[in-house]
Amino acid sequence: MAIFGPKVASLQELFVQELEDLYDAEHQIVKALPKVIDAASAPALKAALAMHLEQTHNHVRRLEQVFNRLGAPAREKRCDGMAGILKEVEKTLREGQSSPIMDAAIIGAAQRVEHYEIAAYGTVRAFAERLGRSDVARVLEETLNEEKAADAKLTEVARQINSQATVAGLRR
Amino acid sequence: MAIFGPKVASLQELFVQELEDLYDAEHQIVKALPKVIDAASAPALKAALAMHLEQTHNHVRRLEQVFNRLGAPAREKRCDGMAGILKEVEKTLREGQSSPIMDAAIIGAAQRVEHYEIAAYGTVRAFAERLGRSDVARVLEETLNEEKAADAKLTEVARQINSQATVAGLRR
Repeated sequence: MAIFGPKVASLQELFVQELEDLYDAEHQIVKALPKVIDAASAPALKAALAMHLEQTHNHVRRLEQVFNRLGAPAREKRCDGMAGILKEVEKTLREGQSSPIMDAAIIGAAQRVEHYEIAAYGTVRAFAERLGRSDVARVLEETLNEEKAADAKLTEVARQINSQATVAGLRR
Repeated sequence: MAIFGPKVASLQELFVQELEDLYDAEHQIVKALPKVIDAASAPALKAALAMHLEQTHNHVRRLEQVFNRLGAPAREKRCDGMAGILKEVEKTLREGQSSPIMDAAIIGAAQRVEHYEIAAYGTVRAFAERLGRSDVARVLEETLNEEKAADAKLTEVARQINSQATVAGLRR
């Protein structure tokens, strides 16, 4: 989320900082996802993550559109929250091997990423509405809905994967 | 989330590691929340956060109950995701001053915390169910439902706070 000093005196400024934070978070995800897709084994999981990578590129473009509408430069501000979540993801990928257990861990991680974004887009949409920018709120809501759908899709894939992970565990 | 090496060969082990991760995350929240409550100005926000601190103490106890049912020691495993989210929170508190704008930023941060936990408890509940431990799944679901309710409560408070933040911004 946005860090603000004494200079942030208005909701408009906080709003722009939150957008800069999300712009950085989306770029971090674009960079991390291909490695996660490689490490996944279940085709359904690989497909769901690949679709989300496509969407994430689109979320970056939507944020640029929002900056443009607000007359603000598209700047990135370090998002420590997403960095922390992705740090865990990278450790997981380095230390484990592709397996149904790894897939279960990946889904757990990916849902944390989605939920971070659901919270963050919910916040900026609320700020946009409050600032009377319903045009911008609508653009942000499109992404919010895609994050929610991606989370629901992962829950569906998880049911399938966890079943295989249990079997793998029992067969040891 | 849990980091697992080649030693994690079963869903049961991954499940315990995810619980250890959450046990650490809850302790981090218990430590951070009092400072956030101090920095908030709106009474409705202070009250919502104070109620959530009470609940968080209870979430710690529920996790201990879960470890006990599983015959596993209650251990903490560093949760980098929550650490990243709380790092942002602490920077916000250090750099800003109490105001409706600060309150709006605090709500944005607190909802990221809630959503991280919604994702994490959703994962461990699914693992518990998959492992045939519906008794443990029920305990974890109690906390999951409280996290969802806390998030909804913050959305409600946000409507009120954002309205004041806008006015503060306009009055500059």
